[in-house]
Amino acid sequence: MRYIVGVDIGGTNIVVGTVSEDGSQIHGIRTDPTHSEQGAQGVLARIAALVEDSIQATLRATGLTREAIVGVGVGSPGPLDRASGVVLLTPNLGWRDLPLRDLVSEAVHLPATLDNDANCAIYGEWWVGAAKGAQYVVGLTIGTGIGGGIVIDGRIYHGASDIAGEIGHTTIDSTGRLCKCGNYGCLEAYASGPAIAARALEGISAGAETRLPEFVAGDLSRITAQTVYEAARHEDEYALELVRETAKFLGAGVANLVNIFNPDVIVLVGGVTLAGDRLFVPLRAEVKRRAFKPAVERCRILPGALPGTAGVFGAAATFKLQSWGQA
Amino acid sequence: MRYIVGVDIGGTNIVVGTVSEDGSQIHGIRTDPTHSEQGAQGVLARIAALVEDSIQATLRATGLTREAIVGVGVGSPGPLDRASGVVLLTPNLGWRDLPLRDLVSEAVHLPATLDNDANCAIYGEWWVGAAKGAQYVVGLTIGTGIGGGIVIDGRIYHGASDIAGEIGHTTIDSTGRLCKCGNYGCLEAYASGPAIAARALEGISAGAETRLPEFVAGDLSRITAQTVYEAARHEDEYALELVRETAKFLGAGVANLVNIFNPDVIVLVGGVTLAGDRLFVPLRAEVKRRAFKPAVERCRILPGALPGTAGVFGAAATFKLQSWGQA
Repeated sequence: MRYIVGVDIGGTNIVVGTVSEDGSQIHGIRTDPTHSEQGAQGVLARIAALVEDSIQATLRATGLTREAIVGVGVGSPGPLDRASGVVLLTPNLGWRDLPLRDLVSEAVHLPATLDNDANCAIYGEWWVGAAKGAQYVVGLTIGTGIGGGIVIDGRIYHGASDIAGEIGHTTIDSTGRLCKCGNYGCLEAYASGPAIAARALEGISAGAETRLPEFVAGDLSRITAQTVYEAARHEDEYALELVRETAKFLGAGVANLVNIFNPDVIVLVGGVTLAGDRLFVPLRAEVKRRAFKPAVERCRILPGALPGTAGVFGAAATFKLQSWGQA
Repeated sequence: MRYIVGVDIGGTNIVVGTVSEDGSQIHGIRTDPTHSEQGAQGVLARIAALVEDSIQATLRATGLTREAIVGVGVGSPGPLDRASGVVLLTPNLGWRDLPLRDLVSEAVHLPATLDNDANCAIYGEWWVGAAKGAQYVVGLTIGTGIGGGIVIDGRIYHGASDIAGEIGHTTIDSTGRLCKCGNYGCLEAYASGPAIAARALEGISAGAETRLPEFVAGDLSRITAQTVYEAARHEDEYALELVRETAKFLGAGVANLVNIFNPDVIVLVGGVTLAGDRLFVPLRAEVKRRAFKPAVERCRILPGALPGTAGVFGAAATFKLQSWGQA
């Protein structure tokens, strides 16, 4: 069995793991803060160290020799150019025209490939997760931002210049909230982690009755989407309302995807899945209310099944896809 | 050269033409009112007569014999099931579970295939029209409703159950206008022909200064989107404002498609193209304002190049696609 190292570069953390080519095993999961403020060279050094650590752990666990490790798949925020392996621009990481693929490859002495982080996460869910084997898959990665990935017939749909799948920046309310991207009413402006926290704070300043402040020892600046989900689990009415409201926003965006793609599976990945049925039940109801019945009936709307590792599995799978033509 | 008959069934008219297999020629274009209120048998009889007429005209024009005509591609409102050739439900035509493909085939003694009318129109534009040869094409058909079609690598994207491409029913304003489909804020509820007429009437009842009533001899019930475009051509300020507003609504929907698909071409087909640059200039500006810059730069936003015949060309092309694997 051959193994591939998957590297998932996020704004906060880098996660690395070594995955068997059939996706059945993952070894040597390692994570480190990204610290992008220390510059690309620092991030690269951390990636190289994590990859080496992960490989060593894998060889110890499996008894294999180094030849079993055949390559590295890298998932990075974009936009990027797959053909040249260059990250064009990442506002969060401060990179511009960085030849990330070749830099990683040289640092770890292995062939490498590069794809978008959200594409990788959704591809991972298609490969071995919630959307395993489905023919038509659309996915959302919901965290600091909202990314997206589209998998058709086992291949990532990249579009004309590798930008496809920017689902977080689809408008659900054309005169609505200003988004960081400059557009108005983007899904991301309502349903990303920071957007959920911002809506919570707006309600609190408007006098909403809630125990949310207790969950952050009174320091409202520490309220995150996770705080909202935790308060909802404790049956805080206002937090529950925020989750239902989030489900409605997401439902409008997901209904659009159902009507456009008529997919077998829509998979949601990231922190938002922590909200569980409190989110997914009203989300499915909202999609049912909005989208075409035969398309809704055909489509399963699921939380990701690979918390924390979807991007690593997917990065490994994209190495297979780019190097061998299929995952 | 072989020829294929293309049949485009609309709510108002049926259009038929006979197309050479390379798409370079069309002969015997024939059209007749659909008169769906007379029942499916009546519509079928009209289709059969139009197909026979079109074939005869083609044989006269080309000097070919009947063997040159190899099949019929039918484009019909849906939803429908391509595999069985059955139209599942068409509210406009009143059909339910109609085995249209086989009924047409038997009536005209030729093999037939069936696909969605909007898919056919966009496929026609990809085959020989404005989007000719482009790898990633998304299209809108704008008339009584707003349909959509997606062409990837020369093939129509149908999704899991032939419903993909319902772009008219994507939400651009989640708390907006109620759409006939039951959803709120659908693109179709703002930018279809009847929606444009409805917005015009709303403005007139609110006291808008306009010469629109003069274009319908004072009979406001006769105002259509075409009336609005005509008044705009005559520099009526209110009509121009309606066109700009339409461009803004369409721009939000098209920007979503640009961010999701990163296409080479977005093509708009139907009456709306009559508005010309008055619509397309502000539309492109709105898309530029909303969508990701590298995706916008990559994408041409074009009016269809086959007025009245895109659906016929496309229906013929879908016969090739379904029968021979490619158009």
